[in-house]
Amino acid sequence: MEITSSNKSFGGWTKHYSHHSSTLNCDMRFAIYLPPQTANGQKVPVLYWLSGLTCTDENFIQKAGAQRIAAELGVAIIAPDTSPRGSDVADDEAYDLGQGAGFYVNATQAPWNRHYQMYDYVLRELPELVEATFPVSDKRSIFGHSMGGHGALVLALRNPDRFQSVSAFSPISNPVNAPWGQKAFSAYLGKSPSSWAQYDASLLMRKATGAVPALVDQGEADQFLEEQLQPETLEAAAKASGYPLQLNRREGYDHSYYFIASFVEEHVRFHAKHLSA
Amino acid sequence: MEITSSNKSFGGWTKHYSHHSSTLNCDMRFAIYLPPQTANGQKVPVLYWLSGLTCTDENFIQKAGAQRIAAELGVAIIAPDTSPRGSDVADDEAYDLGQGAGFYVNATQAPWNRHYQMYDYVLRELPELVEATFPVSDKRSIFGHSMGGHGALVLALRNPDRFQSVSAFSPISNPVNAPWGQKAFSAYLGKSPSSWAQYDASLLMRKATGAVPALVDQGEADQFLEEQLQPETLEAAAKASGYPLQLNRREGYDHSYYFIASFVEEHVRFHAKHLSA
Repeated sequence: MEITSSNKSFGGWTKHYSHHSSTLNCDMRFAIYLPPQTANGQKVPVLYWLSGLTCTDENFIQKAGAQRIAAELGVAIIAPDTSPRGSDVADDEAYDLGQGAGFYVNATQAPWNRHYQMYDYVLRELPELVEATFPVSDKRSIFGHSMGGHGALVLALRNPDRFQSVSAFSPISNPVNAPWGQKAFSAYLGKSPSSWAQYDASLLMRKATGAVPALVDQGEADQFLEEQLQPETLEAAAKASGYPLQLNRREGYDHSYYFIASFVEEHVRFHAKHLSA
Repeated sequence: MEITSSNKSFGGWTKHYSHHSSTLNCDMRFAIYLPPQTANGQKVPVLYWLSGLTCTDENFIQKAGAQRIAAELGVAIIAPDTSPRGSDVADDEAYDLGQGAGFYVNATQAPWNRHYQMYDYVLRELPELVEATFPVSDKRSIFGHSMGGHGALVLALRNPDRFQSVSAFSPISNPVNAPWGQKAFSAYLGKSPSSWAQYDASLLMRKATGAVPALVDQGEADQFLEEQLQPETLEAAAKASGYPLQLNRREGYDHSYYFIASFVEEHVRFHAKHLSA
């Protein structure tokens, strides 16, 4: 593992690392924020952030302003890249398939299946690396935006023993019924929708037994709201299964990082409460 | 004037505009943050931000996290670009001269003098446009980073009647004795250093009569500290003239926006106090 940058921020440290991922079969980058509480060796819980389409390990760490609250509350943040990367990694010219668009699934279809195993990478390899390397505990929560909100919800719903809480901004709530999800799942998982259900937050929440507390924020001026995001399917699923979901609709907010920055404090406080419980 | 983007943030609005500048003889972009207090027509004071080398109207507005505090305190923020722009505007291949490197001076030398009049643009044309267009008062403060910290200090020191307060992160404190300043001033103002003194914060502070309260933050791990920034010259000038300067040295912090984000709340609160006095 190699450190590529290190910047003091809010009394702690924002750092970027690169490492070889055996799960993804390529070199990967991730960002970490280590709050000031770790300076004396104190182990802090970890909050994983999953970014949306076209993003890297940099967007959230530069634009969301989460370090300020993580420093106050003593939480580490990890932000991985959104897909495998490299000149020998399968790609597509479209922004919503291939590199930058891993959708946090384990691909089963060629040529994608050689590298696109983001579900396993985020669930297993990355936490094992983080917990073996940094002064962090094994308490984990997870959140994300858009494609990453979908990823966070799916990972928490399928692994309630691994996460204390989950939240999402503008998640793709029902990808099996949304153009982004249908395109990506067809490519990565094949044409049969029966293999898609394990990666659909609304379908998973509807039959959830374990219950990781969930918080979702959705801007009402989001250009992708009706066609791609469909938060009403998540609300209906939570109602059907009695799932502990709080979903806030925010008047006037769009799909951008300005929306995330405006409400990230509430999300980090929500996770810190569950991480320290 | 044309609006190019508008994003709700922290209950207010982050917007970018383009307009034709008669001072700069080209089209220019700037960002504005209008806090929620302006929604009912309330006039709020304005805090101008001047960015550093290579930056545009976007860097501060996306990375510093200042909107949160501006929303709380009811202050508008204006972030102009760092130079005139365009294919017919003189430029240089170096990052520290030409487009992206206007140094907030009025150029007197060809070919720069046709467009590079950033001092007058920030002092006169931009505030006139802002105050005629948006629900803001004529109370102004100014701050900036690096080249923009130099610009903010120079504008406030030379125009104490125009600004309530001034602050800077990692300013080029004594450009007549720093490589960045010597290169830019030679090009824009000519080889004679006698024309440079009017744009040197340390020389101006040493003989200041009016006194706009000044706050400076400087990271001690800043790679440009000794050669380019020289905050000790500003401290010596303030001591000589009894200038109301508070200069904080911050252990471990570098020249990046992570440093700015870590302390921007203190700066915005400093300005808000003087803007409401």
